[in-house]
Amino acid sequence: MTALLPSTKRLIDGLFSASALARTHLSRSITLVESSLPKDRVQAELLLDHVLAQRKLHHAAKTASFRVGIAGPPGAGKSTFIETLGLSLTQKGHKVAVLAIDPSSSVTGGSILGDKTRMTHLSNAPDAFVRPSPTRGTLGGVAQHTNGSPSYSPTPCADEYAEIVLLCEACGYDIVLVESVGLGQSEIVIDDTVDFVMLLVPPAGGDELQGSKKGIMEIADIVVVNKADGELKRYDRYLPSYSICSMVKMCSAREGDGVEGVWDVLTEFRQLMASKMEAKRSKQASKWMWNQLTEELLLLAKKKAAAEAKRLAPDLAHGYISPRSAAHHLMDAIFKDTK
Amino acid sequence: MTALLPSTKRLIDGLFSASALARTHLSRSITLVESSLPKDRVQAELLLDHVLAQRKLHHAAKTASFRVGIAGPPGAGKSTFIETLGLSLTQKGHKVAVLAIDPSSSVTGGSILGDKTRMTHLSNAPDAFVRPSPTRGTLGGVAQHTNGSPSYSPTPCADEYAEIVLLCEACGYDIVLVESVGLGQSEIVIDDTVDFVMLLVPPAGGDELQGSKKGIMEIADIVVVNKADGELKRYDRYLPSYSICSMVKMCSAREGDGVEGVWDVLTEFRQLMASKMEAKRSKQASKWMWNQLTEELLLLAKKKAAAEAKRLAPDLAHGYISPRSAAHHLMDAIFKDTK
Repeated sequence: MTALLPSTKRLIDGLFSASALARTHLSRSITLVESSLPKDRVQAELLLDHVLAQRKLHHAAKTASFRVGIAGPPGAGKSTFIETLGLSLTQKGHKVAVLAIDPSSSVTGGSILGDKTRMTHLSNAPDAFVRPSPTRGTLGGVAQHTNGSPSYSPTPCADEYAEIVLLCEACGYDIVLVESVGLGQSEIVIDDTVDFVMLLVPPAGGDELQGSKKGIMEIADIVVVNKADGELKRYDRYLPSYSICSMVKMCSAREGDGVEGVWDVLTEFRQLMASKMEAKRSKQASKWMWNQLTEELLLLAKKKAAAEAKRLAPDLAHGYISPRSAAHHLMDAIFKDTK
Repeated sequence: MTALLPSTKRLIDGLFSASALARTHLSRSITLVESSLPKDRVQAELLLDHVLAQRKLHHAAKTASFRVGIAGPPGAGKSTFIETLGLSLTQKGHKVAVLAIDPSSSVTGGSILGDKTRMTHLSNAPDAFVRPSPTRGTLGGVAQHTNGSPSYSPTPCADEYAEIVLLCEACGYDIVLVESVGLGQSEIVIDDTVDFVMLLVPPAGGDELQGSKKGIMEIADIVVVNKADGELKRYDRYLPSYSICSMVKMCSAREGDGVEGVWDVLTEFRQLMASKMEAKRSKQASKWMWNQLTEELLLLAKKKAAAEAKRLAPDLAHGYISPRSAAHHLMDAIFKDTK
């Protein structure tokens, strides 16, 4: 057992302090959790254990959190929407954490304008915490391999969001908004992370979503047409594909119109689905654990079976040994100390 | 060590026989390889080992195989194209194996008309072997989880294709054509399985592909516009997105026009890329092995850590324990006999 380092201890204390620095400590804790350095991984796990245990102590007094995913193609106005909604929620007494798409990241589809100043008002609000989404990638559910051996991919994975969401909630943020492009694998990630998925589209948008119809369209609990300013005719043609979602709403985040209405729908949904929410979260948490386990197992396999994998490589490449037979050799190498 | 059953031995002997029944034995061998029953899995591995070892004996005398993926949206005319190309190749003395999309499967996007009579001419050609693609799914690279614990998904996985491709090649099929819808995860599968990826589109097609531009479009080595009959103006608008691929060709598979030309391009590519092909196959084979290992590890984990997972479930669901801490408990359960 490795001990809690003094620096980690200070982070934990800081997280639960009432000082204005709590946000800074949260930010540093997330950086620790995102780190892939072995020594950081140990401390991150200890930090999470301590924070979540303290959360358990405080739990009875807290209301449950609400996790909302906001997906949409670039240009849908996601950040404007989140800023408008977030500010309105803090004014109602909520503490709002936002996992935002990093505008400088091409992987997560951030704005190509590189405007790092998105959500400035919300970032400065005392009861809000805005943080770029993790992009470290993982060996888990969406494993990527380079040159055959397992390696880290730049695909964001639900597990990383999970720990950040848990940290934010433990620090009293009762609403967590997760921004996502909602195309490709991010749609799976968001469904594995949040209670409720909102798909935000511009009035004439949807072209990008047609190809991924079976993805985000099936996951979205509500479609919100942002920038709704009268020219809704062009939007009509997308209605049939949107209609598989439970609801379609319109708003103009820039004007502030309709955003409250969207929140009302979310609140209503939350109440209606309260009984199912626990099962959903339980399923998600279990998935995070298994993904994490897969990652751990593959890291161990890579270490213990590297020599055997190298030995088998030529026969494998020429088709003289089957992949499953080769995998069994690796299994033997991994468990050779076991009896 | 489990012994080769007489039935498996008969399959192996039949595979290498010159009789007309060799194809039947190949078909039965593939069924064995696709089976997920534990007893079949053991025999399948033994069969593969024997077949691949015999292949090694014959290898010097054989020319290398060529694996071609043919992806395209429904309606692109993939089966007509494959039939025309396949028949032409058998006439040139090649033995052609086809892994075709099962027309009755909704998962692999087969024709909704349910016409199981696709590729009848090719199926009846003595030097051709047509087999529906595997859809058993796997725990590997594209792992799916249900209710948190790992389980089989209906997503086709490269590893299954791999073993079928190896079997076909060992039986003397020197050209393997793998049909794919080319949308979603199948695009990853196909890139992990074949030497060369062809994207087949109808003249005005491409709408479905716009959304997956970063998938199949980046993987395709050539785009072939099928059913090219003069109305190519509508196709022009897709040229910019196709231009990231190395080449665009036109043909009409139904008329037989241009299919030879497409094959010439493939042959040329094959010669040009010969030096890189070995590295690509080596990388693919290694990936198959690691995917297979992931599957094996998760099956074992599910067995050995089930009780611990159940014990942790409530704390996990309520966020009192972090996914990574829970995963470490599972690791301990899996390796508790190890020292």
